[in-house]
Amino acid sequence: MTDVEVIGVGMHPFGRYPDASLKDLARVAVTRALNDAGLEIKDIQAVYSANAMGGLLQGQEQIRGQAALRDVGIEGVPIVNIENACASGSSAFRQAILAIRAGAADTVLAVGFEKMFVGDRDRSLAALESAADLDVVAGLGLQFTAVYAMRLRNRLDEGSLTVGDLAAVTVKSHRNGALNPNAQHRKPVTAEEVLEARPIAEPLTLLMCSSIADGAAAVIVTRAGTHGRTSRPRVRVRGSAARSGFTSDGSAEPSTSTVCAQRAYEEAGAGPADIDLAEVHDAMAPGELLYYEQLGFCEPGGAADLLRSGATQLEGRIPVNSSGGLSSRGHPVAATGLAQVAEIVWQLRGEAGERQVRAPRLALAQNSGGWLEGESAAANVHILERVEPWS
Amino acid sequence: MTDVEVIGVGMHPFGRYPDASLKDLARVAVTRALNDAGLEIKDIQAVYSANAMGGLLQGQEQIRGQAALRDVGIEGVPIVNIENACASGSSAFRQAILAIRAGAADTVLAVGFEKMFVGDRDRSLAALESAADLDVVAGLGLQFTAVYAMRLRNRLDEGSLTVGDLAAVTVKSHRNGALNPNAQHRKPVTAEEVLEARPIAEPLTLLMCSSIADGAAAVIVTRAGTHGRTSRPRVRVRGSAARSGFTSDGSAEPSTSTVCAQRAYEEAGAGPADIDLAEVHDAMAPGELLYYEQLGFCEPGGAADLLRSGATQLEGRIPVNSSGGLSSRGHPVAATGLAQVAEIVWQLRGEAGERQVRAPRLALAQNSGGWLEGESAAANVHILERVEPWS
Repeated sequence: MTDVEVIGVGMHPFGRYPDASLKDLARVAVTRALNDAGLEIKDIQAVYSANAMGGLLQGQEQIRGQAALRDVGIEGVPIVNIENACASGSSAFRQAILAIRAGAADTVLAVGFEKMFVGDRDRSLAALESAADLDVVAGLGLQFTAVYAMRLRNRLDEGSLTVGDLAAVTVKSHRNGALNPNAQHRKPVTAEEVLEARPIAEPLTLLMCSSIADGAAAVIVTRAGTHGRTSRPRVRVRGSAARSGFTSDGSAEPSTSTVCAQRAYEEAGAGPADIDLAEVHDAMAPGELLYYEQLGFCEPGGAADLLRSGATQLEGRIPVNSSGGLSSRGHPVAATGLAQVAEIVWQLRGEAGERQVRAPRLALAQNSGGWLEGESAAANVHILERVEPWS
Repeated sequence: MTDVEVIGVGMHPFGRYPDASLKDLARVAVTRALNDAGLEIKDIQAVYSANAMGGLLQGQEQIRGQAALRDVGIEGVPIVNIENACASGSSAFRQAILAIRAGAADTVLAVGFEKMFVGDRDRSLAALESAADLDVVAGLGLQFTAVYAMRLRNRLDEGSLTVGDLAAVTVKSHRNGALNPNAQHRKPVTAEEVLEARPIAEPLTLLMCSSIADGAAAVIVTRAGTHGRTSRPRVRVRGSAARSGFTSDGSAEPSTSTVCAQRAYEEAGAGPADIDLAEVHDAMAPGELLYYEQLGFCEPGGAADLLRSGATQLEGRIPVNSSGGLSSRGHPVAATGLAQVAEIVWQLRGEAGERQVRAPRLALAQNSGGWLEGESAAANVHILERVEPWS
């Protein structure tokens, strides 16, 4: 199979940017990714553009990527617009990889952008609702938070997690986010503050939840050997897997992300024990605990022990969400999956600054989105590898 | 390169279906494509779903394909939602081909569906406007018709086309559409009727224009050899090319479709003279004449001669839009590109009934969409081949 490498990543910081248009957000992320790669826009041969809510929030549908990239100086290359709820960014990343493996291009840009602050919170929340089948959920309110809350409530009831664990993982997320210049929420919080914050859906509180955000992220992938070597460590795609959550019996086991991770491990020829670093889709910070198990970082029921052991902290054996995750970095929907990739690339290269973890070689990003019968409508798991050994 | 074949096609007829939901439209097209292929839904390993206006018209964004395909019985396979204005359908088709060439799946479904009749014509027309960059066109009214009208006006002024040609190609479109059970407009028209119809944008009249429609189309592609042989003629993908219309100097020459066609010919190892049949993107029937030149079926300026020679009629050397084209078959935006593929597959197999053309071997489909600085925001050209000789 064709070797695909990530050669450049870039972000527009996540947060609230009332003066920035979708074009501004996309341009900053793309320009930074090009600079990071040492490439010019003319080197890009195809674009996969991800946006989830631009139709409902900005009225721009149909050619969102072409409109957003007008100012970037792109010329003539195919642009395909990708949408897959909160997994839009990683879906664009995967299509970029497949385009190279298919021989359709040698250097491909994946970009995700979202502008959720539109001066009307109710409208932003209503647009989020379209991440589920409207025939089912319309008018019921946000499914996401409720589904997370129910799952965590069950775990608290059966005793495999405590409220203290939910607070602790949130504290960890915010501690990491505080070290990330691209994060929306950069203030460390205490367990007390987490538990005393406004209740959202019991047992979730405000500080556990990702919030409305503006932002963009871009990743450039290339067929290995296309561009000249630089002094930067190379990062190779070892595994890419995608799945949607339809099941014949309505059962949520094994979860979409579980199956997806198994396939990505298989393609990578590696297992969870080989992973040195992971970004997971913690739309609510305690969701990270559920993913420990789904991704195989511990046995089912073992999330609390893994967390309490400190293994998933920056200094631990398998740091998780070194970026702060969705809950602290912020979650501008279609940008998130590509921001995860940016984070693990920076970490694999040793460029993550204050939040750098120790010499990671293999890293995983798990991004999921949308809801169907209690499962993710889309999930993607990617495994990236640092090619050169750490000196 | 991996050989990719089209193994099944299906449509929900185009037209006005007030009682059909997006789910209904998609289900009918997918079920027919599966039956056509002799496959079951469990044989599908990945889905590319195209819809252009569901966010603005139905409020369903983010997971449009997953929502639309709920009732089809699909399970666990990755679904990616694709959007590229009027080229959405062919963009999904191309991604399906690339997924197979990349080795990500052996059998892939591309489906496009659109429901434009929403009981409020103004809302449908406003949604269509999002096929251009809203920062540029918002409030200006529909760009499409005006751009086509200006181009044709120029050709009339310079004398390379006559009003009679515009009427004649429209008459041809409607004659073909009348023979197509999946077409929206099934009534032959006379040149007099065309020219006396309500003016839309001079020189275009109502009967020349594609109209709001509901509909769906589905195409199943497979790695050659994946499924057992049937008695049906096999249809192979010989060329696939994509492009967007950004140009450095704002020039519209060569057009996006011209460049795209050149690449598709190159991949196919064939030229325009080898094409036996074509479906082109005649959002306005006379647009077909411009595409004769862009696709190389005649020299620049030679469209009128080609039309008048009868070569592009059903009985001619290179029949164009045997289906009736967008102007007669109808144009439910994201379904169109896949309906074009369905038409050329039926023709290549000899299954096109009353509108069957004589023993075609190589056929081309050209689909374009959106507007940027006077050019298509996205264009795709595909070339398909009948594998077995005609007996």
